[in-house]
Amino acid sequence: MNANSSRPAPAAAGRPSPTLEDLALAAGVSRSTASRAINGGSKVSAQAQAAVDAAIVALGYTPNRAARSLVTRRAGSVALVIPEPDARVMMDPYFAAVIMGVNEALRETDLQLVLLMSRAGDDSARTIRYLRGGHVDGAIVVSHHRADDWVESLGATGLPTVFIGRPWDTESGIPYVDLDNFEGGRLAARHLSGAGRSKLATIAGPTDMTAAVDRLQGWLQGLREAGLQPGPVIHGDFTTAGGADAAARLLAEAPDVDGIFAASDLMALGVVDTLRQKGRQVPDEVAVVGFDNHSLQAANGLGLTTVAHPMADIAAAAGKLLVDAIANPGELPEPVIYPAELVVRGSSAA
Amino acid sequence: MNANSSRPAPAAAGRPSPTLEDLALAAGVSRSTASRAINGGSKVSAQAQAAVDAAIVALGYTPNRAARSLVTRRAGSVALVIPEPDARVMMDPYFAAVIMGVNEALRETDLQLVLLMSRAGDDSARTIRYLRGGHVDGAIVVSHHRADDWVESLGATGLPTVFIGRPWDTESGIPYVDLDNFEGGRLAARHLSGAGRSKLATIAGPTDMTAAVDRLQGWLQGLREAGLQPGPVIHGDFTTAGGADAAARLLAEAPDVDGIFAASDLMALGVVDTLRQKGRQVPDEVAVVGFDNHSLQAANGLGLTTVAHPMADIAAAAGKLLVDAIANPGELPEPVIYPAELVVRGSSAA
Repeated sequence: MNANSSRPAPAAAGRPSPTLEDLALAAGVSRSTASRAINGGSKVSAQAQAAVDAAIVALGYTPNRAARSLVTRRAGSVALVIPEPDARVMMDPYFAAVIMGVNEALRETDLQLVLLMSRAGDDSARTIRYLRGGHVDGAIVVSHHRADDWVESLGATGLPTVFIGRPWDTESGIPYVDLDNFEGGRLAARHLSGAGRSKLATIAGPTDMTAAVDRLQGWLQGLREAGLQPGPVIHGDFTTAGGADAAARLLAEAPDVDGIFAASDLMALGVVDTLRQKGRQVPDEVAVVGFDNHSLQAANGLGLTTVAHPMADIAAAAGKLLVDAIANPGELPEPVIYPAELVVRGSSAA
Repeated sequence: MNANSSRPAPAAAGRPSPTLEDLALAAGVSRSTASRAINGGSKVSAQAQAAVDAAIVALGYTPNRAARSLVTRRAGSVALVIPEPDARVMMDPYFAAVIMGVNEALRETDLQLVLLMSRAGDDSARTIRYLRGGHVDGAIVVSHHRADDWVESLGATGLPTVFIGRPWDTESGIPYVDLDNFEGGRLAARHLSGAGRSKLATIAGPTDMTAAVDRLQGWLQGLREAGLQPGPVIHGDFTTAGGADAAARLLAEAPDVDGIFAASDLMALGVVDTLRQKGRQVPDEVAVVGFDNHSLQAANGLGLTTVAHPMADIAAAAGKLLVDAIANPGELPEPVIYPAELVVRGSSAA
């Protein structure tokens, strides 16, 4: 997969692209030897391979990928599938971190990363056709929702597929990389109860995402272990605006709340905004804990206590799993789970 | 291109995919007729086409795209090329608007949108190979910089290409859709000078992007027309942090400034932040004008005066140009330029 990575830019625009015949002629080998050398075949002498490699560089040869993929069954690209219909999700720093992490894993390969987003309508059928049509060698799926069961069927089609975040259906054995979201929620509950807060509530994420469900279950478990009542659970959409709205609803329902766990930093920022607008002091009157550790500041220079979520590392691990799965088809690696850690800052320090 | 848009999801995972032979048998036509019908050929009777269409739906048939592209030279997808090495640019709402606009243009087609971002290293060579390798039927290029001359060579390779934003090299005749950035900068200068401000400065964008250069030239032209000196020009990177930094440098250089034109709303937000931190009242002491009209609020409920930049509309127009260019190869459409309009809000109202 690495054979082409030092190849220079192809021939300048306007000049006709060199053909396989041109390449074979320049390398002094047969057309079939040139073809096998290009496609990384094993039945090529080291001498012939070196001659073809040199000719590729000299001519700026670019193979016809469509023809090549029929021979090698390699498209030279992997997809990052984001089954979200609204492109505004890209503004969440989560996706930038994921893209950077996957690119880090692909850096030493010659694989081109292509991003596929859902569209409204018959989008998933088109995306499945694209993914199954030989255009990519594998797929990484991120930010999937319970209704996106088409995504989970990808693994069964034989396309190497890795999930970032636990899929709903783990029985299919699709490999995935995830944070220990349950433990993250539990740490938030232990921290707030340990700081003497007792009127606790959570702004949870969407109920159709496993990360949100796991964080909520861990939170409730932590409250049980501390001998506390579960308290209000309001669901938000992981965005700042959603967090602000949810906090307003929470304050109407439970005006005496003294600690809030928001299941994403963006929602936590919205929570802090709402608290300030309602005249509540953070952390003196209400302590706030977020999740993700990508927002260093809550408000006015106040640091946000949060659960670290090394998204780029997790995405890089998923990229490495995918590269391995493409190289070794048939092997199903075990899930990789990163441990959760709490980062304590001013928003929850009494 | 629209023939497949009502096709349901393909056969469930695990079941073998129906072949072309299966399809021909079910439709009661020959294999070659089925092939021509699938690929939208003209030498197919309406009756045969209808029978094949029905069989496609009944069987959940998915064509082998790699084989198909060799026949039809259609990959069924178009690329949105974002030649930015840092995935964090995706957090700029500009890109979400562009993706939504392009998807709007593709909604009535069966084309899959794939996003390609640059990576560090030998990235552009890989991306060129991907784009020229038959994996896409066309490309839309956005956010290109002067050094990305490889992007401008795409059009000459025969791949239908449309730019969002004027390319540096317009002699190649690559079609593009743009805002009248020059007029936008000129409107900002006329507005601030007309409001009685005379110690004007601009936070311009990166010098290697045509949009930034055009906005700056228009701004300087507007100042000349108002009989004002050009004033300080500080360059930022279109981000909020970059705008805040540039404003701090500007205030050190020209502490008596009474009007600032920031060439993006994100930079304008950073400018307002810095002004507030330095104790300057907006707009009483310093009026601020942004560019883009995606940020409705400057600070504390104060609206941001800005130049409207209908990014989604511009991206949709580029998408339509590309679809036309794929359907009618050889025709080079004229550039499409959207007029600039100023939206006056509280940040510049005296």
